[in-house]
Formats: sequence, C-alpha cells, structure tokens
Amino acid sequence: MKEFYEKIFKEIDSKYEEHLKRVQRLIRQPSVSPLNIGIRDCAELVKDMFLEIGCSEARLVETSGNPVVFAKYNANAEKTVLVYMMYDTMPADEEGWIVPPFEGKVIDMPPFGATLVARGAFNTKGPLAAFLNAVEAIKEVTKELPVNLIFVAEGEEELGSRHLPEFIQKYQSELKKADVLFFPTASENRRGKPIIHLGVKGIVYFELELSGEKWGKGPTKFGIHGSNKAWIDSPVWRFIHALSTMTTNDGNKVLIESFYDKVAVPNEEDEYLLKELVKTFDEETVKEQLQIKQFIDDKHGIDALRMYLFSPTLNINGIWSGYIQEGTKTLLPHKITAKMDVRLVPNMRTEDVLPMIRKHLDKHGFKEVEIRMLEVGYNPARMSYKNKYVQALIKAIEEMNKKPEIWPTIAGSAPFSMFHDPPLNLPFIEGGLGHGGLAHSPNEYLVVGEGGPTSGLRTLEKSYVAILYNIAKA
Amino acid sequence: MKEFYEKIFKEIDSKYEEHLKRVQRLIRQPSVSPLNIGIRDCAELVKDMFLEIGCSEARLVETSGNPVVFAKYNANAEKTVLVYMMYDTMPADEEGWIVPPFEGKVIDMPPFGATLVARGAFNTKGPLAAFLNAVEAIKEVTKELPVNLIFVAEGEEELGSRHLPEFIQKYQSELKKADVLFFPTASENRRGKPIIHLGVKGIVYFELELSGEKWGKGPTKFGIHGSNKAWIDSPVWRFIHALSTMTTNDGNKVLIESFYDKVAVPNEEDEYLLKELVKTFDEETVKEQLQIKQFIDDKHGIDALRMYLFSPTLNINGIWSGYIQEGTKTLLPHKITAKMDVRLVPNMRTEDVLPMIRKHLDKHGFKEVEIRMLEVGYNPARMSYKNKYVQALIKAIEEMNKKPEIWPTIAGSAPFSMFHDPPLNLPFIEGGLGHGGLAHSPNEYLVVGEGGPTSGLRTLEKSYVAILYNIAKA
Repeated sequence: MKEFYEKIFKEIDSKYEEHLKRVQRLIRQPSVSPLNIGIRDCAELVKDMFLEIGCSEARLVETSGNPVVFAKYNANAEKTVLVYMMYDTMPADEEGWIVPPFEGKVIDMPPFGATLVARGAFNTKGPLAAFLNAVEAIKEVTKELPVNLIFVAEGEEELGSRHLPEFIQKYQSELKKADVLFFPTASENRRGKPIIHLGVKGIVYFELELSGEKWGKGPTKFGIHGSNKAWIDSPVWRFIHALSTMTTNDGNKVLIESFYDKVAVPNEEDEYLLKELVKTFDEETVKEQLQIKQFIDDKHGIDALRMYLFSPTLNINGIWSGYIQEGTKTLLPHKITAKMDVRLVPNMRTEDVLPMIRKHLDKHGFKEVEIRMLEVGYNPARMSYKNKYVQALIKAIEEMNKKPEIWPTIAGSAPFSMFHDPPLNLPFIEGGLGHGGLAHSPNEYLVVGEGGPTSGLRTLEKSYVAILYNIAKA
Repeated sequence: MKEFYEKIFKEIDSKYEEHLKRVQRLIRQPSVSPLNIGIRDCAELVKDMFLEIGCSEARLVETSGNPVVFAKYNANAEKTVLVYMMYDTMPADEEGWIVPPFEGKVIDMPPFGATLVARGAFNTKGPLAAFLNAVEAIKEVTKELPVNLIFVAEGEEELGSRHLPEFIQKYQSELKKADVLFFPTASENRRGKPIIHLGVKGIVYFELELSGEKWGKGPTKFGIHGSNKAWIDSPVWRFIHALSTMTTNDGNKVLIESFYDKVAVPNEEDEYLLKELVKTFDEETVKEQLQIKQFIDDKHGIDALRMYLFSPTLNINGIWSGYIQEGTKTLLPHKITAKMDVRLVPNMRTEDVLPMIRKHLDKHGFKEVEIRMLEVGYNPARMSYKNKYVQALIKAIEEMNKKPEIWPTIAGSAPFSMFHDPPLNLPFIEGGLGHGGLAHSPNEYLVVGEGGPTSGLRTLEKSYVAILYNIAKA
C-alpha cells in the first residue's frame, strides 16, 4: 500500500507547478454569489475542469438561482462517491487585502511559508481544484480511479444553498447511486493538527422588524424630530421590550416556548468523543484566536465543549435603527430591524423555528413585530463515529501520519442534511490535510508550501488520494 | 404709528432685491459645524455684515471651539436687546436636493411661490440676514434704532452650543446690559399662522454602550463567527436587557428612579394657555405632517398637548451593532451602541441626568454599560405669558394683522437657558412672521415671495421692525 501511494504521491510532487496553476485559474475567475459577479463564467470553468480530468459527462444544471455544475466519472468501481463542492465565494470588497483578492498570488506568510492569498483560496475553490488535481494524478499513475465519482458543485452556498433542494429533488435518481458524500476541505488547525467534524448544526436566518407603519403607532413613514417622543410611541423601545422577552437577563437561555423540546442530549458516543477530545482540546489557543476572556459562566474543558457543540442558540447578528453616524441628531425612528439566527442541534427542525418565534411574540403581545425569513436554512446533520466511512476518513488521515482530533460536530452550519436526510439518506464525511483561514475576511489564505507547521497543497492532494482509496475499501 | 411703519415698510419693499442678495450672500458661504466646513470664513462674513449695518464694534471672540461673532450697536436708547443668532448649519450631504444646497437659488415652490432652497435658509442664516436687513431699513428711514443691540452669533449651535457658556462667562458684564434676549425666526406654519413658543425643553444627549472588552465577557476586539454564541456571551443580548429595564413595556413611562421627581406640573397659566391653544390647535394637520396615525394612548386635544409639552422623555435616537447590510452574515458582535437623549421640562436639571442613569444601571446590575456624554446639554427655559416682552412680541404680531397661536413651550430644545438662568437672568422671546421648513433635511427652504399662504422675506423683515419698536415701548 505504501508503495502504491508512493507512485501517486511522486506524480503529485512532480506536477506541483501545474496543479498550483489549476488552483490559481479557478481563483482568478471571480464567482461572488452575494453580488452576482462572475457566477456563470465560473460555472463554465468548473465544467471544463471536470471534463479535463476525464469526466464522461459535465453540464450546467439550471435552477431558479445559480446553476449547479453536475458531472460524472464512471470507473466501473464498486463504490460511488458524491463529491459535494461549491464554486461561489463571499465578496472581497473589504479593506485590508495585502494582495488583490482575485490575482491568485502566492506570498511568503510566516509561519506557514508559501501561501496563496485570495478570495476562495480556503472557502472552498482551493480545496475544489486540489481535489481535481488528486483525481488526475491517480489516473495518470493507475489509469483508473478506485471509486466512481458524482460531482455536485453548487453556486449558492454563500446564499444559504437556497436552490440546492430543487436540484436534489430533480436529480434524485442519479444521486441515489452514491454510497457516501464527501466534502473536500483543508482541515488542519494553525498547528497542523487535522480536525474531523462528525456533523454540523442547522441554521435558520431571519430578520425581526418593528415599523410604525405596521404597528399603527409611532412614526410611520420616516424618522421624525426626537422631541415628538413626548406624544408619539417609539417603535425602538417597543422592539427592545419584545426582544427582551426572548432570553434570560444574561442572554444565554432562550425563553421561547418549546425551544429546547426536541433537543437531543449528548448520547454515550458523544460523551466518549468529548472525553477523548478534551485531552487535546487547546482551550487557551481558542480563547487567544477569538480574543475572548472566558466562555459562558466561565466554563472550562468538557463543560465548555458540551455547551459549544450541543446547545441550540438564538443570536442577534446585527441590529439597527435611526441615526447611527458620528455626533448627535435627535430622531424618533420609524423602524428597527435585527438580523437573527437560530442554530439547530440534532432532532431540531428548520420548519419549527419561525412558527415558534411567531407564537412567542404573539403570546407576549408583540403581534406587530414582523418576521422575515432570509434563508430557507439547513437542518442539523450528524454521523456516528463508528460509521465505516468516518472510520475510512480517520484511517486515511492516519495513513498520512497525522493523528486527527475528532469533534462530534462543528458549531457552524453546512447543507449536509440535504443529502443526509431522506430521500437520499447519504452518509457524509468532510476533510483533507492542509490549512487555510480567514474565510469571509480579508487575506483569506490556503497554505501551499510544505515547510511550515501545517501541510501544503501537495499533502492536501495526497490526503484526498488516501481518502478515496480508503472509501473504496470501506 | 401705522404711518410711521409705512415708511419703513416701503423702504423694505423697495430694497427687496438687495435684501435677498444679503441673504443669498450668507447662504452661499458654507458654515457646516459638524463637518468643520467654512466656519471661520462665515464668521468673518457675519462680522462684516454687522459692520455694514452700522455696528460700532464687531469682532470674532475665540472660544475653545468655533468663534462667537460679537457686535454692538449703540442707539443711545433706553432698552438694549441681546440678539442671539447662529451662523452654523447642519451638513447638506443628503441625497434629494433639487438645487445645489449652497447655491442660494430661488425657485417657485407651490403653494408658497418664490422660495429660497438652501442649507441654512430656514435654520437660521435666512432669518439672521433678514434681521440685519430690517435694522438697515429702520436706520435708512429714521436715522436711528429704537433700541440698542448686542449681537451674539454663535457657530456651534448644531454642536449643542458647547462653548457658548464659556463666552457668556467671559462677556458677562457686557451681556448683563441687555434687557431682553431676542431670537429672530420665521415662525409661521404652512398655513401662515404664526406660532409663539414661550419656552424650550432642555436636553442631555449621550451614548450608552456595552462592549465585550469592558464587560470582560463576549467577543472583546471584533465580531466573531456567530456559531460561537453557544459558548460565548453576547454583549447585544445583555444590552437589550439593560435597556428594557428603563421603560414600561410600551416604552412610554421612564422607570429610572427619580426621573420624574423634579418635574413641574402645569400651573394655572399653563392650563389657561392650553385651553386657549386647543381652540386653534390643528391636530389633523400635525398628524398629516408627521405621517402618524395616533398620539400615545390615542390621546386627543388638550390631553395630547399636555403630554407633548410637559412630559420629560427618554428617547433612543439610534442603535446599532454587528452586521447591518443586505442579506445574511453570521456574527457575534463585540459591541452595541445607542444614541439617546433626555428632554427636560421645567425644574429638571441637566446635571442630574447622567448620574440618575448610572445609578439605575448599577442598581439593575448593568455596571458594564458605559455612558458617554455627547453634548453638555441645555436646561429647560420658560417665560410667562404675562411677561412684558412676551406681550410686546404678541402685540407686534397683531400689528402685522396676524393672530398668533401661543404655545406654553416647544417640545424641542434651544440654549435659551444659558441666557435666562443666572447670572444673566434675561427674559427671552423668539419669533418673526414668515415660513420655512425642512431644517436638517434636503431642500431646506425659506419662503421669500408674498403670494402664497405664508408671509415671505419682506413681511419677515417688517415683523422684526414691529418687534423692535414694541420692545422699545415695553
């Protein structure tokens, strides 16, 4: 086995420049879904890349939103892997980029060494192109792949994958042929330790708004002179009171009726994984990276982790009303808006969330507060540690001489449930060696050199090889 | 008397073009104090204008902020009028101006006719220049003024007159020579009815802020990924709870201890004035102008007026935190800020406000919420209807064949207390016929023609003549 890998790995090493170029080619084609920039051109490019590596079929599948790039590679193998990818990115209009975000430049970034700094480098056009490089290298050496591949590259992940269910519905019979879903990422932390997440939380994202227009009180059309507060109601004050009914005083326990009803408590396996995880969980590094002084109630270790991974949350991402510039302006604002989300843990369902909040507001007399759904949302998804594909992933990492840190779930969200839930019922895994960071921020990066504390592009591609062969044997 | 006015009025009519030019000259010199644009040039221009109309002395008095233009006109008269003015304006960078805001253009604006549309046209460079025109016209006809004048034109009214107390302190002995303070305005409503306000409310303007940095909980330096809510405190939720303790559920009664303790209840004179006022108070027009459907608790007539004029308020002018652009971004924000003000009614004092709020927050366990004073504030100020200068103002309006509507106070704020309180103890009046609007907004205007429902520039100047002569006789 070692020898077998060695040939492919040698091929990967020898093609480094070429492989880096494929990554750069994909990065240089902007595909910013929130601003609708370059989407179709990028979809065409991804389609071409699928054909380049030998897919028998690759095409753009239209949806009500951005097209999904769908491709198939038939190796006449026993197992079929559905490779879920995304070709869209967040905008790159923030200040502070040290290189132009779509130039695809590699710079020396201590302590990592050669690093590609670009929008999409890490999330996730870098890993996407690296996976194609890996497939090409296997074929070059062995003439055939160990598994059949179905590629689903969506263009709306940064918009909440809003039309992915439409695609899945339409391509159900094709997708059902897969045995497992794999999401290629670069999952090492800054120190080079690979992290495996066995699941994701779900999310529902919405806005709450109170306007004088809908309320029938307060200013209705525009903010008016602040002195009018003396005889005119304030939508802002009213909204503050509505929000304040939703949590305890510290903001940490949600008081919405039924909110915690379906929440699954950590099971035996979860507790086992937590106990294992806490052995290597580096609490101080997390606090340093996030620049926080303490976790809620100053919890530590396993208690902090349990809270982080198994609690559903109600978060205010943003809130705004009235005059928010420098200095003073007296104003009685006519409306106030908050962007909020609920993160769902296993057994909670997206469709329950907004009715629950509506009921809570009505019950407390705030019928005038409007709820506006912004994203259709994802359900939570979890895999068992014992699942054979999870074990295959772990084995692949170990074959690469790394010891993974295994998290029962990540606290963030991804659309895995769309494949994991009926009708597809696909098991899923995500991973890959290598390291990137600053997703959604200036100077997003993917380490490409191998000299630093983390793996680079070559190791990332090699890890995908190991993952595919271990899936084949699972 | 009629004959006597007639000569001066004829002079004003004949000089219309010249007078309008003086107004335009002042408007065309930007003097935007919040953005520090053109302030000193405008102060110099105002000084020159004081000298032009025959002041024996005019100069810029330096303060720690913008200069006060101080001027004197000695007519060897019995009475001395302190004319309080401001030469600064709000910015004009809003969208929607139909003419450039510093071009000083006169356009036809139905139903008013010829109207000057410009930043400062109404608030208050228009009335300032018009007053100088009136003074010049009197001198041209009679060779002398009926009163001595002391001019105080400040350049920081839009910044809360923050250095005016410094000037008053320094020029105390000069200012004490005045018998009354007069603030020239254009006080007709849209239908041409002149409104006299016998007072102003006071104001204290401040920001409340809760940051993770100061709290020691939540994100401290920047917003972090929203999934962290599961194990990290939210300054936003905490702040919502802090705010919610401050008012009743409807936002209308302030629950801060001692808030209402010093509030003076409407006295006999107030009630008399309210009863008179309600006879002409046009509730529906007010609601239409403000685009509101009802007053608080759907109050009407005298009850609504009593609430409007005699209630202190705690208002949220603006509030903001986290992600407030289009679409979705998950974020756990590190701080939240609200711009707030308290309006003070008679007997309340600016210096009591912030300690009261500090005490409230501490008492409710919100020591981590910071208070940042933005404006030193004004105390409330009131004049009795029976005061001889108030009577002189009313008589002047009546001589101009208009019947004023008399309001015990306005719900807004102005720095009259700085002159009315010790050490100066000056009575004050404000007024003038004519109409303007959209102060602080795009297309601020002052009606200059006389054909429409309101008075124009000529009548405004004539009303100042009548006011000065009536003050002389008071």
